[in-house]
Amino acid sequence: MSMFTTDSVIGVIGAGTMGAGIAQVAAKAGHPVLLFDAAEGAAARGREGVAKGLEKLVSRGKMTADEVEALVGRIQVITSLEEMAPAALVIEAIVERLDVKQSVFGQLEEICSEQTVLATNTSSISVTAIGSTLKRPQNLVGMHFFNPAPIMKLVEVISGLDTRPEIARDIYDLSASWGKKPVHAKSTPGFIVNRVARPFYAEGLRIYQEGGADNATIDAVIREAGGFRMGPFELTDLIGHDVNYAVTCSVFDAYYNDPRFLPSLVQQELVNAGHFGRKSGKGFYDYSEGAEKPLPHTVDAAAKPNTVTIEGDLGVAEPLVELFQNAGIEVTRTDGDGRIQVGDATLMLTNGQFTTVRAAEVSNRNLIHFDLALDYAQSGRIALAPADKADTKAIAQAVGLFQAAGKAVSIIDDIPGMIVMRTVAMLANEGFDAVNQRVCNEEAVDIAMQGGVNYPRGPISWATAVGLSRILNVLRNLGASYGEDRYRPSPLLLRKVAGGRQA
Amino acid sequence: MSMFTTDSVIGVIGAGTMGAGIAQVAAKAGHPVLLFDAAEGAAARGREGVAKGLEKLVSRGKMTADEVEALVGRIQVITSLEEMAPAALVIEAIVERLDVKQSVFGQLEEICSEQTVLATNTSSISVTAIGSTLKRPQNLVGMHFFNPAPIMKLVEVISGLDTRPEIARDIYDLSASWGKKPVHAKSTPGFIVNRVARPFYAEGLRIYQEGGADNATIDAVIREAGGFRMGPFELTDLIGHDVNYAVTCSVFDAYYNDPRFLPSLVQQELVNAGHFGRKSGKGFYDYSEGAEKPLPHTVDAAAKPNTVTIEGDLGVAEPLVELFQNAGIEVTRTDGDGRIQVGDATLMLTNGQFTTVRAAEVSNRNLIHFDLALDYAQSGRIALAPADKADTKAIAQAVGLFQAAGKAVSIIDDIPGMIVMRTVAMLANEGFDAVNQRVCNEEAVDIAMQGGVNYPRGPISWATAVGLSRILNVLRNLGASYGEDRYRPSPLLLRKVAGGRQA
Amino acid sequence: MSMFTTDSVIGVIGAGTMGAGIAQVAAKAGHPVLLFDAAEGAAARGREGVAKGLEKLVSRGKMTADEVEALVGRIQVITSLEEMAPAALVIEAIVERLDVKQSVFGQLEEICSEQTVLATNTSSISVTAIGSTLKRPQNLVGMHFFNPAPIMKLVEVISGLDTRPEIARDIYDLSASWGKKPVHAKSTPGFIVNRVARPFYAEGLRIYQEGGADNATIDAVIREAGGFRMGPFELTDLIGHDVNYAVTCSVFDAYYNDPRFLPSLVQQELVNAGHFGRKSGKGFYDYSEGAEKPLPHTVDAAAKPNTVTIEGDLGVAEPLVELFQNAGIEVTRTDGDGRIQVGDATLMLTNGQFTTVRAAEVSNRNLIHFDLALDYAQSGRIALAPADKADTKAIAQAVGLFQAAGKAVSIIDDIPGMIVMRTVAMLANEGFDAVNQRVCNEEAVDIAMQGGVNYPRGPISWATAVGLSRILNVLRNLGASYGEDRYRPSPLLLRKVAGGRQA
Repeated sequence: MSMFTTDSVIGVIGAGTMGAGIAQVAAKAGHPVLLFDAAEGAAARGREGVAKGLEKLVSRGKMTADEVEALVGRIQVITSLEEMAPAALVIEAIVERLDVKQSVFGQLEEICSEQTVLATNTSSISVTAIGSTLKRPQNLVGMHFFNPAPIMKLVEVISGLDTRPEIARDIYDLSASWGKKPVHAKSTPGFIVNRVARPFYAEGLRIYQEGGADNATIDAVIREAGGFRMGPFELTDLIGHDVNYAVTCSVFDAYYNDPRFLPSLVQQELVNAGHFGRKSGKGFYDYSEGAEKPLPHTVDAAAKPNTVTIEGDLGVAEPLVELFQNAGIEVTRTDGDGRIQVGDATLMLTNGQFTTVRAAEVSNRNLIHFDLALDYAQSGRIALAPADKADTKAIAQAVGLFQAAGKAVSIIDDIPGMIVMRTVAMLANEGFDAVNQRVCNEEAVDIAMQGGVNYPRGPISWATAVGLSRILNVLRNLGASYGEDRYRPSPLLLRKVAGGRQA
Repeated sequence: MSMFTTDSVIGVIGAGTMGAGIAQVAAKAGHPVLLFDAAEGAAARGREGVAKGLEKLVSRGKMTADEVEALVGRIQVITSLEEMAPAALVIEAIVERLDVKQSVFGQLEEICSEQTVLATNTSSISVTAIGSTLKRPQNLVGMHFFNPAPIMKLVEVISGLDTRPEIARDIYDLSASWGKKPVHAKSTPGFIVNRVARPFYAEGLRIYQEGGADNATIDAVIREAGGFRMGPFELTDLIGHDVNYAVTCSVFDAYYNDPRFLPSLVQQELVNAGHFGRKSGKGFYDYSEGAEKPLPHTVDAAAKPNTVTIEGDLGVAEPLVELFQNAGIEVTRTDGDGRIQVGDATLMLTNGQFTTVRAAEVSNRNLIHFDLALDYAQSGRIALAPADKADTKAIAQAVGLFQAAGKAVSIIDDIPGMIVMRTVAMLANEGFDAVNQRVCNEEAVDIAMQGGVNYPRGPISWATAVGLSRILNVLRNLGASYGEDRYRPSPLLLRKVAGGRQA
Repeated sequence: MSMFTTDSVIGVIGAGTMGAGIAQVAAKAGHPVLLFDAAEGAAARGREGVAKGLEKLVSRGKMTADEVEALVGRIQVITSLEEMAPAALVIEAIVERLDVKQSVFGQLEEICSEQTVLATNTSSISVTAIGSTLKRPQNLVGMHFFNPAPIMKLVEVISGLDTRPEIARDIYDLSASWGKKPVHAKSTPGFIVNRVARPFYAEGLRIYQEGGADNATIDAVIREAGGFRMGPFELTDLIGHDVNYAVTCSVFDAYYNDPRFLPSLVQQELVNAGHFGRKSGKGFYDYSEGAEKPLPHTVDAAAKPNTVTIEGDLGVAEPLVELFQNAGIEVTRTDGDGRIQVGDATLMLTNGQFTTVRAAEVSNRNLIHFDLALDYAQSGRIALAPADKADTKAIAQAVGLFQAAGKAVSIIDDIPGMIVMRTVAMLANEGFDAVNQRVCNEEAVDIAMQGGVNYPRGPISWATAVGLSRILNVLRNLGASYGEDRYRPSPLLLRKVAGGRQA
């Protein structure tokens, strides 16, 4: 049975956006909340901010004024740390400095009871290290909320080396009782989200750096085919390149320069230039008054083909067949290895090779790779990468086919693994590797990426839908294309595929 | 002819454990010894310590009181560096700081004769760099003793870029005359031992991190199958994780982040937690009063099989066959590629693949890898790693077979290269690479690892006994399993195998 | 139309060797030049130096005294930055410190007109970063001259993230009008030359470290077979190892420890020793009074064979056939895969494997690799690497053949890719990768390496002459030999070869 009830007093230290948001979450769940901030008046301003934010919900009819009053009334501003004495749980959300956090928790150990659970909202410091100076490191746990805390569902519950398992479990349950989606994770650099998300930025940046497509096109493909809310360039423009680059460098450094986490020179140059994104008025895009957002490259209308041949099973891309039929195209199905023949063009789902390399291997100059989509039936856009020597005519036939299926078509340069497939394969691979290193389980990866950064589908579930052996093949071919350890498949993926292949 | 005789005065600077130990070694060999320490009284205390240590030998009847008196009498405490003037060799064993060492040797160049050999016991600083500020860098040599100096046989004789070969040779001969096992090595990070030993810690840590087995089991397998005196966890608990982690980081850094020397996040967390090992009361194991040491996982007794078929030559594992026969099991031998068939189970010596991956390749769900042993006839334990889909029954048959052969059996998770094989392959690989980079010769690697860290067999000799092509295959499969440059075979190993394969 | 005419005033800040040289170049082209240096008197001394240097040209009859007087007369020494006001272009050649450069350019923005172009001669700082504190970063451009500026043809015109394309174009045209060979490049670490040149040093250092050959032999092969003006050891001795090592470390660091740019422990030890090269009297070679330069290993005269069989096309090595014929050797041509049979020996152009490994694969113990030459008809030397088990007799036959063809022969150890082939393959690979990352185009790579560091042929043009698929094969085999990402082929090379192979 959990040690917490709604009567349990919850302390929050640090009344910035994150601390105030956490206070709001706890108060909403019915807890008496003590809010402290070392800066004079900051805690009061924090509570004020909560109240103001909630008033908007009242005006939108989502809460009543009474409910807001009660909620805010449960948040008591305190002006000395000593007043934290009655807290059953104190959550710290202050500056990211090891020594400062250790000092605060050291004081709390003197002030609070021996049963009080101490939680840190750190995103980048080892929970184990924070606990190392405490008398009762077993009572310290990481409780990593995502911004804005009242809205984002994810809480990463982080166990340091000395954290008592029961405490991690109680914090997990408490978070769940607050309406959150908690996950367990081990104290490791980046925990789950800040580790597994890195390829989302990194692969986009690399595709851009190599001239695969322009920012707007990559963003559009990630959004309209991949189903993500934002592409990597609009998202990092929003996060701020200084922040995003610093997180990448920090993770890269913490993993002893693992090439999987290699920072991007392109992003570094943005930081060098002071083009931090929205907040500085310029990033990958220009946010100045009157600046127009560039449009993705979209191919003009091409002729609809009359017939198409589907050779073999298209796997995850099968819904395309119905779209073709609905468009009035005559579909012939034959045996084969999963390809679409339309006119002179041969279309295959990208396998991580250059189309040009695969075209040479299969002696088919008119090979065209198409990219992964979250849902081929619904997605509004598809990216195509023809082999270098593909005929203009064959390309037009492929374009016409997808346009008939209702897709905007972006022709991009011949990039191994294209855009969505490459991103998803690398996200899933990083997820598998976190599991392989016992950071968390597979379910936690998917919950974390959906709840912490709004992915449309958990990367492991997504990869499973695509087929793990296909994902492994994409990663191996990316590795062969680039020759870098960066694309090495997680050993866990290898083993799963081998185990599953077993008769 | 060497420039040293037993009349040669040996100076020792620094009277800590290492300096005092070196003084004892030289005095024992009959040299007049001058012992200096910058800290007042430290040299006298050092000599005192030597005397006390030797008294224990007297009480155990290994030395006479007279011998001890004579030995200690040959150690003269001096209180100013100027008194080092008569020394033919001065060995420095002070703090590991480049500037301090350079300053001391600079002074000695003024005090001593032009023929005096200057030796540094540094373990981590470039001998070349130390010599760079000297007038006569050709007279400086590294003389790296291992702790405790009177007991450990190894002396690494380190040539800096400017060290005269004759001087290195004379120091080699002098060390040998002191009863040591000297080896020559070039001034490079970690010299031989601190470089070649890294995989012993690193592979154990990784197997643990990936959940391959618990600490106690890995330690037991390394000890009881591998023949090492201690496993990696009990050993690093003894060394201290702060120290061991710092050495790893230093070597990693010095080799420009070569992934072969990648530090471990697991060990870093121990350091973060302050769990330094024995000295702090906790490390991988708990050393507090009354704490029980966990037992290795050992499978309960299973039925002894009546028959076993040996297909082909088992190579280094051949001694198993006699053990099976001696247990009264009927052994049938047939042609084949070196496997053991018992009931439904197929047992093969690990080749560096996941058992699960190999099982899929050979379409045999009941494949079980067994690990390397130092001596299959004598070893008390064997580790087995079944493929993920192996039947319980087949596993029990394999267990019963090895139990009948007198082995405790540890079933571990499906870890590529298992425990002993993986460790030995990586140790040998690092040894070959040191040779390939002209740090030392092969014989020196083996002498160093046996004399400096008590390995039961030199890794190169051991790898040769296993078969270099088999070791190469294990490394290649480890590389394929993990996809990291870390497991790349040394080019020298490649070439040796190719050269040997030649008709 | 360019904004510059010969009437345009050119400002130069910093009157050291580089700044004075740039002033000379601009003045020679007819521009009025303003020369400023913050150190009192330095600008005057700089102009003096120009005058003195030109007097030598007068004495050699290459300029008239009047021409020199006019040229020097066009260089006006100014003593305050304010006097830069009339400049149409100001080129900065001061200390490599970001803050200092930013400060100078910030002042210039106040002093000069809004149209004035600001150029930095930085070799190692991001042009984007320098521009980040400016009001008009679009007016800042990199203009990287090579030392000595009046002689070296190359100017790297560097566009920062904010540099206006028109300005980069105008600077390109202006440089061309000054008789330079400009190239466009993006602001990235090392730009073109300091990035693409790294393997020239790195591969030589590694071959030496692994005992492939001594310094003098490697230098001789690079010069006499490769056609480079100097080998890597004599060149780094000239540059200074402190400088060359620092550049390598800086590029390695800037590319986030990309193993392609791995620094060398051998060179680090030279730096540790203070053996900086010519300037310190010692480097790889001894420059002290009376020291003899070691000779390359050259095999003594062996018997000329009477016959040789050429199996297949030798590709880039075809000119050898005529040399053999001219030497009176009977040449038989048959079908085959491009090999030379002479007596018991089989000679093949190195493919990046150990000869020993290839010999085992083709079951031919007497396989001998020969190295690439810039021009097989003219080159004075050839390197041979026999397989480990090759007969002395076969080796002598191969030696005799090449000696008959007029080559000095160096037998080296069995080094994958040998010396010239390995160096050229890696230079070209780095060139392709710079192109792949959109730093510059292929033509710029070749111009830069010929104009900036005097390579006898641009690496991309050279690789194309050798055959891109052969170069790719060498790189893949180097990768298989060493197992390091360092030798990964650029994806662009992969794609080009696949595209070209396409029917």
